[in-house]
Amino acid sequence: MTPGDLHPPLAAVREAVSRAIAEDVLPLGDLTAGLVDPGHRVRAAFVSRAAGVVAGRLCAAEAFHQVDPAVHAEWQRDDGDAVVEGTVIGVVGGSLRSILTAERTALNFLCHLSGVATLTRRYVEAVAGTRARILDTRKTTPGLRALEKAAVRAGGGRNHRGNLSELVLVKDNHLGGMSIEEAVARAHERWPSRVVEVECDGLEQVREALAAGASLVLLDNMTPDEVKQCVAEVGGSIPVEVSGGVGLATVRSYAEAGADLVSVGALTHSAPVLDIGLDLEGEPVS
Amino acid sequence: MTPGDLHPPLAAVREAVSRAIAEDVLPLGDLTAGLVDPGHRVRAAFVSRAAGVVAGRLCAAEAFHQVDPAVHAEWQRDDGDAVVEGTVIGVVGGSLRSILTAERTALNFLCHLSGVATLTRRYVEAVAGTRARILDTRKTTPGLRALEKAAVRAGGGRNHRGNLSELVLVKDNHLGGMSIEEAVARAHERWPSRVVEVECDGLEQVREALAAGASLVLLDNMTPDEVKQCVAEVGGSIPVEVSGGVGLATVRSYAEAGADLVSVGALTHSAPVLDIGLDLEGEPVS
Amino acid sequence: MTPGDLHPPLAAVREAVSRAIAEDVLPLGDLTAGLVDPGHRVRAAFVSRAAGVVAGRLCAAEAFHQVDPAVHAEWQRDDGDAVVEGTVIGVVGGSLRSILTAERTALNFLCHLSGVATLTRRYVEAVAGTRARILDTRKTTPGLRALEKAAVRAGGGRNHRGNLSELVLVKDNHLGGMSIEEAVARAHERWPSRVVEVECDGLEQVREALAAGASLVLLDNMTPDEVKQCVAEVGGSIPVEVSGGVGLATVRSYAEAGADLVSVGALTHSAPVLDIGLDLEGEPVS
Amino acid sequence: MTPGDLHPPLAAVREAVSRAIAEDVLPLGDLTAGLVDPGHRVRAAFVSRAAGVVAGRLCAAEAFHQVDPAVHAEWQRDDGDAVVEGTVIGVVGGSLRSILTAERTALNFLCHLSGVATLTRRYVEAVAGTRARILDTRKTTPGLRALEKAAVRAGGGRNHRGNLSELVLVKDNHLGGMSIEEAVARAHERWPSRVVEVECDGLEQVREALAAGASLVLLDNMTPDEVKQCVAEVGGSIPVEVSGGVGLATVRSYAEAGADLVSVGALTHSAPVLDIGLDLEGEPVS
Amino acid sequence: MTPGDLHPPLAAVREAVSRAIAEDVLPLGDLTAGLVDPGHRVRAAFVSRAAGVVAGRLCAAEAFHQVDPAVHAEWQRDDGDAVVEGTVIGVVGGSLRSILTAERTALNFLCHLSGVATLTRRYVEAVAGTRARILDTRKTTPGLRALEKAAVRAGGGRNHRGNLSELVLVKDNHLGGMSIEEAVARAHERWPSRVVEVECDGLEQVREALAAGASLVLLDNMTPDEVKQCVAEVGGSIPVEVSGGVGLATVRSYAEAGADLVSVGALTHSAPVLDIGLDLEGEPVS
Amino acid sequence: MTPGDLHPPLAAVREAVSRAIAEDVLPLGDLTAGLVDPGHRVRAAFVSRAAGVVAGRLCAAEAFHQVDPAVHAEWQRDDGDAVVEGTVIGVVGGSLRSILTAERTALNFLCHLSGVATLTRRYVEAVAGTRARILDTRKTTPGLRALEKAAVRAGGGRNHRGNLSELVLVKDNHLGGMSIEEAVARAHERWPSRVVEVECDGLEQVREALAAGASLVLLDNMTPDEVKQCVAEVGGSIPVEVSGGVGLATVRSYAEAGADLVSVGALTHSAPVLDIGLDLEGEPVS
Repeated sequence: MTPGDLHPPLAAVREAVSRAIAEDVLPLGDLTAGLVDPGHRVRAAFVSRAAGVVAGRLCAAEAFHQVDPAVHAEWQRDDGDAVVEGTVIGVVGGSLRSILTAERTALNFLCHLSGVATLTRRYVEAVAGTRARILDTRKTTPGLRALEKAAVRAGGGRNHRGNLSELVLVKDNHLGGMSIEEAVARAHERWPSRVVEVECDGLEQVREALAAGASLVLLDNMTPDEVKQCVAEVGGSIPVEVSGGVGLATVRSYAEAGADLVSVGALTHSAPVLDIGLDLEGEPVS
Repeated sequence: MTPGDLHPPLAAVREAVSRAIAEDVLPLGDLTAGLVDPGHRVRAAFVSRAAGVVAGRLCAAEAFHQVDPAVHAEWQRDDGDAVVEGTVIGVVGGSLRSILTAERTALNFLCHLSGVATLTRRYVEAVAGTRARILDTRKTTPGLRALEKAAVRAGGGRNHRGNLSELVLVKDNHLGGMSIEEAVARAHERWPSRVVEVECDGLEQVREALAAGASLVLLDNMTPDEVKQCVAEVGGSIPVEVSGGVGLATVRSYAEAGADLVSVGALTHSAPVLDIGLDLEGEPVS
Repeated sequence: MTPGDLHPPLAAVREAVSRAIAEDVLPLGDLTAGLVDPGHRVRAAFVSRAAGVVAGRLCAAEAFHQVDPAVHAEWQRDDGDAVVEGTVIGVVGGSLRSILTAERTALNFLCHLSGVATLTRRYVEAVAGTRARILDTRKTTPGLRALEKAAVRAGGGRNHRGNLSELVLVKDNHLGGMSIEEAVARAHERWPSRVVEVECDGLEQVREALAAGASLVLLDNMTPDEVKQCVAEVGGSIPVEVSGGVGLATVRSYAEAGADLVSVGALTHSAPVLDIGLDLEGEPVS
Repeated sequence: MTPGDLHPPLAAVREAVSRAIAEDVLPLGDLTAGLVDPGHRVRAAFVSRAAGVVAGRLCAAEAFHQVDPAVHAEWQRDDGDAVVEGTVIGVVGGSLRSILTAERTALNFLCHLSGVATLTRRYVEAVAGTRARILDTRKTTPGLRALEKAAVRAGGGRNHRGNLSELVLVKDNHLGGMSIEEAVARAHERWPSRVVEVECDGLEQVREALAAGASLVLLDNMTPDEVKQCVAEVGGSIPVEVSGGVGLATVRSYAEAGADLVSVGALTHSAPVLDIGLDLEGEPVS
Repeated sequence: MTPGDLHPPLAAVREAVSRAIAEDVLPLGDLTAGLVDPGHRVRAAFVSRAAGVVAGRLCAAEAFHQVDPAVHAEWQRDDGDAVVEGTVIGVVGGSLRSILTAERTALNFLCHLSGVATLTRRYVEAVAGTRARILDTRKTTPGLRALEKAAVRAGGGRNHRGNLSELVLVKDNHLGGMSIEEAVARAHERWPSRVVEVECDGLEQVREALAAGASLVLLDNMTPDEVKQCVAEVGGSIPVEVSGGVGLATVRSYAEAGADLVSVGALTHSAPVLDIGLDLEGEPVS
Repeated sequence: MTPGDLHPPLAAVREAVSRAIAEDVLPLGDLTAGLVDPGHRVRAAFVSRAAGVVAGRLCAAEAFHQVDPAVHAEWQRDDGDAVVEGTVIGVVGGSLRSILTAERTALNFLCHLSGVATLTRRYVEAVAGTRARILDTRKTTPGLRALEKAAVRAGGGRNHRGNLSELVLVKDNHLGGMSIEEAVARAHERWPSRVVEVECDGLEQVREALAAGASLVLLDNMTPDEVKQCVAEVGGSIPVEVSGGVGLATVRSYAEAGADLVSVGALTHSAPVLDIGLDLEGEPVS
C-alpha cells in the first residue's frame, strides 16, 4: 500500500481546519497563551500514549500553519503507520504562544482520525488471511466525511460509497411497490455505468438480486451461517457484502463464511480517540 | 431545567446541516431514491433501539427541511428527554424520495449527539447526590463544538469554556519561566472580568494558585485522596475542578472527594452513538 | 422516466443562485429597477424563442425567491419537457422592480441549462432505436457541475461519473510504468465495490482490459469500424463506451457499431443557450 | 494594450478554483490517480489543438497550486495571446498524481475561458478598421462573471456593465407608465455620477433619449439601415450601442453603419471551448 | 423619492446578519437569556433616543428572524424616515429569550446605519437650496459597503462608485509618467461606456481634464474660492465634484461655489451611532 | 504589556480582508489602476496625519498580500504604538497597480481600527492613576467584533465579553418574574465555571446582587455619587463595573468614585477614524 492515497484531499483539510480554528480562537484569541512572553520559542513532540494507527497528519500540520505560518513541523510517522505507546509522531517548533493556541485543534483532528484508523486496523487484522475486506459506511460524523474515509483507508480499510451520488444501493425501504427486478432494471437504465447493489434479507432476495443483474449484494443482519448459504448461492459471480451487527468478536466468522466485503458503521460513528499528547521539550529554544 | 437552553443556536444548526447535506447529496443527488415513484408518500418514525438521552432534534428536523421543505415533522421527544428501546422520538411525513435522501444525515446528527447526551447522563447519574457537576472540555469533534456542547447540556452536564477566548486557564505549559503568581496577576490585569483558572499538579501548586487569587483550580491527574487533600486546602473559598483519567468507574470517588466540577473529555471525543433508526410506517400515505 | 430525478439537488440550486444574485446585484442593487414605482405590479411569462428542452426551472424560481420572496411563480413546463418557439414555460407575478432585478439571473440559468438539455436531446434522438445511451463527461463549467449534469438527465442523457471520487477510470496517462493488468488489479484491490473502467486505444488494449477484469472499456478516438471490432471482441461481457471526436453527424454510426455508451464532452462544454425570454404581460396588475 | 488588465482579480480566481477543485475531488480524492506510484514525477505541456486566443492562465495555475503546492508551472503564453494548433501555452512539472488530479479542472477553466476570448477576437477582427468596439453583456455563466468578462478583455473586447449596480440602463420594461424623459431625469437625479443609457427601438425613442439627456443610446434589434439613421440623428453627441441579433455574419454591417459599440451576448453565453490538451512529456522526471 | 431604492439588496442583508448573529451567539448561545422562562412572551419597541434618520430596518428584522423565525415584527418607520426622541420605529413580539438574544445584533445594525443616515441628512440639509448633491466615498467599514451606501441613500445622499470596478477615477498617483490626456484617452479606449473622472489639484489640471474629455472632474482639497474658479472654467460642460476636508461647517460654502457634487468620507467612516433602544412593553404577553 | 496579544487572531484577519477585497475589486478589477503601466514599481509609506494609536497592521498587510503576493511590506509601528502627525507607520513596495488597488481596503481597516484604538487610549489616559480599567462592550460594528476588540486592547483598554456565550450578565430585562437571587442561583447552577454579573440600577439591587453571590456588579446609568455609595456597599468583595452615559468628560469622576471597570460603548460604535494616508515615494523603483 502506498501512502499517497491514504490522505484526504487538501481541499478538505484546509476547509475543515479553518472551521475548527475559527471555532476555537474567535473572537478574542487565546486569552491564556497571550500571557506568555511572545519571544518564548519551544519544540514540542506529538507522542502517542497508546498503540494504534496514525491518521490526520495533514490536518495537524495545517492547524499550526493557519495559526502561525512560522511554526515548522517535521513528521516521523505518517497516516497509516502503526505506533506504540511513546512513539514520537512528529515535532513542531516555534513560538510557544502559537503552539499552545493550535495544540488542541491539531490534537482533536489527530486523536479522532487516528482513533478511526486504529479501530479500522483492528477489524482488518481480525479478518487477516481471509478474502474479506473491511468497508466503512455513510455513518460518518457530519462535516468530516472526507477526513474520516481517508482515516479508514489509513487503517487498511476500504471505502464504501462516499455519498448518495456514487453508486446505487437498493434497500428495503426503496422497494415500496417495486420488485427487486424492477428496481435493478431502472437503476441500470438510468445509471448505466454504475454499480447497482441490492440489500437482501434472505436467500430469496439474493436469488432475485442475482436474477435481476445486481452488481453486488449486501446481506443485512444475517448470521454467519445464513451468509454462508448466500455466498454459496452467489457462487462467486458477484461480490458479497455483509453488514449489520458486525463487531470485533464476530467479524471473523463473517469473513470465514465467505463475505468479500464487511461494512462496519462503528469505524466512523463510534471509534474512541487514540490518545496522543503534545509534549514540550525540555529547554526553550533561543 | 427548562428545555430551551438545551438546544444549540439555530445558526450552528443551519450551517452544520447545510454542510452535511451537501456532503451526502452532491453532485448527482441520491441515485437510489431517484428510482422511487415521486408520488409515493409515507410516514416514518425515529425509534430508539436502545436506552439513552435525546439530543440533536433541531438538526434532524433541519436535514429534512433542507432536502425538501414539504416534509413535515412532529416530535414526541426533545433534547434532554430519556428514551428506552422502542421509544418513538418523532415522526416525519412526506415524499418517500425526500425522506430516504435526508434519512442518513438526520440520523448521523441524532445518533452522534444523542450518544454524547447519553454518555453525559451516565456520568451525571454516577455522581448523583454529591455536589459535583459534570463538565465537558474542548476535546470536541472539529466543526461540531456548538452542537456537542449543547448535547452535553441535554445530558445534564455543564459546559466548560466554549473556546480559548472565554476564560483563562493556566496550564503547566504556559508557565515557561513564569510563576503561577505572575501568570494569575497578568491574567487579572489583562482580563479583569474573567475567570482565571489554574491547573495544579499537587498541593503546593494549589497553595500558590490560592495565594495568587485564582478563581478556580483544576486538579489534574490526581488520585481521589490527593483531591481530598486539595479540597481541604481550598476550604470552599473557590470551586475545585478535577480532570484527567476520570472514567465511569472512578468518577464518583472524585465527586465524593469533594470536587465541585469534574471534566471529562470522553463525553465528546469518545462517545459511541445512540442507536436510533427510522422505521417506515406500514401503508403508503395517499 | 419520472421527472423527480431530472432536477439537481436543492442544495446545489440554492448555493449557485445565491452566488449569481450576489454577483449581479451587489453592492448598490439594481440602479435602473430602482427608478420604477415600487407599487407597480406585473405578470411576466418565460417564453421559449426556439424549440428545445427545458432545464433549470428550480434555479429560475429560486432567483426570484431570493430577490423578493413575495414574487410568486407558476410553471407550465418542467425540466425535461420539450418546447417549441412560443411555448410559455412559466409565469411570475409580483413587483415589477423585483422581477426586473431577478430576470437576468433567472434567464442565465434557464437558457444555459436548457441549452445543455437541448443539445443532449439532439444526441439522444440521433441514436434512437439503438442500444446506445448518451453520457456526459467531467468537462463541465466550473462551479456548475451538479446543475449541468442534471440538465443532461433532463435532456435524456445519462451521467458519467460526477467527480474523480465516484469510479476508477484508467487512462493512458495513468499507465506510467504500470500495465493495464496491474492497474486494474490495484483498482479492484483498493476500491472493491467500484466500477473500474479502462480507456483503450486499440484492440490489443481491449483484450488486456478484458483479461484484467475491467468493468467497462472506453474506446477512445476510434473509427466506427474499429469500434465494431472491439465490440465483437468484448462480446457483451461488459459494457463498451465510446468517446473522442463524436459529433452529431457521427454519433449514430458509433451507436450502430454497437457501443453501449457514447460520451460527449460538448454537451456541457460547448452547448449554445436555448433562447428564452421574459415577456411582460399587457396590463399592470393592481 | 498591456496584459495586466486582461486578467481577472485574484480574489475571483482563488474562489472559483477552490469551488471547482472541491467539486471534482471530494470526498474521496482521485481514485484513479491514487493508483499511480506517488514518486512518479513528470512534465506536461498545455498544447492548443486549434487556433485561438488564450484566457484563464491564472485559473489553470491556481488549480495545480491548490491540489499540490509543489507542482510548478511556467507559461509561454498569457491571456490575450493568439495561439495556433500545436502552440505550447505552458508547462507544469511535479508529481504525476497531482498533475492528473488537477488536469481536468485546469483545462475546464482554460478551454472555456479561451473559448470566450477566441470568439471575442473573431468579432473584434470582423469589425477591424471601423470605430466599433465589441462589448459583452450580463448574459454570463452564473458564478463566472468576473472570469468571463476578463476573457472578453483578453479577446480584445470591452466590458459592458459588470452588474446591475454599475450604470443605469433603461429598457422598455422599465417604462411602465414613465416616459423616457422622466426615467432619465430620475436616473440623473438619483445617480448623478453615472452613465444613463437608454434602449431605443426606433428613431422616435432615440430623439426622446437625446432630448432627455441620455449618456448613451442602445439600439435594440434594428437593421443596419435603421442604425445608420439613428447614428445620423445622434450626430456624434453621445456614443451609440447596437445589440440584438448580431452575429459574426452581420456584425461588420452594424459597425459600418456607425455604431460605436456592438454588444454580443453570445461571447459569454454560447462560446464553444477552445480545444486545449495536456500532453505528458516523454520520459518521467527523476 | 420612493422608499424602495433606499434599502440594500436582500442578499447583502442576509449575509451580513448571518455573520453578525454567528459572531454574537456561538458557540454556546446566550447564557443569560437561557435563564429566562422559555414560555415568557413579550412585546418590545425600538425607540429612538434622539432625533435622526432611520436606516437598517431590514437588518434589524432579519436579526430576529434568524434567531427565531417565530418572532414577528411591525414597523412604524422605514429607512429614510426622520425620527425624534421618543419615536417608536417598530415593535417586535415573541419569546423574551429570543428577543433578548437578537436585541444587540439588531441594534448594532440599526444604530450604526441610522447614524450614517443621520449624518448624511445633516450634510444634505446644509446644502439645501443649492444644486449640490452629497456623495459618499469608498471609505466604508470593511464588509458593510452595501449596507452603508444604502444608509447614505436613506439619508438623502447619493452614492459615488460602489467599488473600483464601477467607473474610472484618475488620481494623482495614477499619473506616474502619464499625462492626464493620456490617462483619459486610455480610459475611454478601454472602458468606452464608462464615466471617466479626473481628480484635479488646480485650475491647470482642470483645463487638461476638460481638454482630455473627462466626464467629471474632482476638485481635491481646494478652497471654495478655488472651486468657484474651476466651476467657471468648466462652464457647466460636465459636472464638478468637490472633496477633501469638507465638514458640516464648510460644506455650504462649497455648494455655493457651484459644485454639483460634494463627496464626504466622514458619512461612512466617522458617523456616530444614532441612539436607539429596545424597550420592553409593560406586561408579558400570554 | 507585550504586543502579541494586541493583535486579532489571523483567522479573523484573513476572512475580514478577503471579504473587503472582494467588495472592492469584483467583478472587473480596478478599472483605473489597470491604466497604469504594469511594470511601474514604487514604494509608498503609510503616514499618520494626526496623533493617535495604531491598530490594524495585520489587516493592512493582508490586504496587499491578497491583491498581489509580490508586494512586500515593512512596518515601523505596530498595534498599540502611539504616533504623531507625520509618523511613518510602514512602507510597502511593489507594482504601482497592485498598491493602488489595495490601498483603500488597507486604509479602511487601518484608519477605522486605529480610530478605535485612539479613542480607547484617550479614555485610558483620562483615568490614569486610578484603579479603573476601560472596557469595551458588544456594541461593535457587525462583522468586525474580533478586530475591534483587538483594537481596544491596542488602545490599552480591556475586553468585556466577546459574545453572549462568554459570561452571564443579568440585566433588568432578564428579570421578568425572577428575582436577582433566583437569576444568580440559576446562573451558578447552569454555568458553574462562569462569571455571573448583575446589572444594578441602585443600591438596593447591589445589595441583592451581593447577597445572591454575583461575581461582578454593573452599575448602570448612575451618577458618580451613586457609584461611590455602591462601591462602599460592595466593600471590595467583588469588582464594580460602571456603564451608561460615560463620556470623556465624566469618565474620571466615575473612576475616582471607585469603579474597577468602566465600560464605554462609544469606543467601538462611534470612534471617528484616525486619519492615515498612503504617500507614494518620489521616484519609481526599477
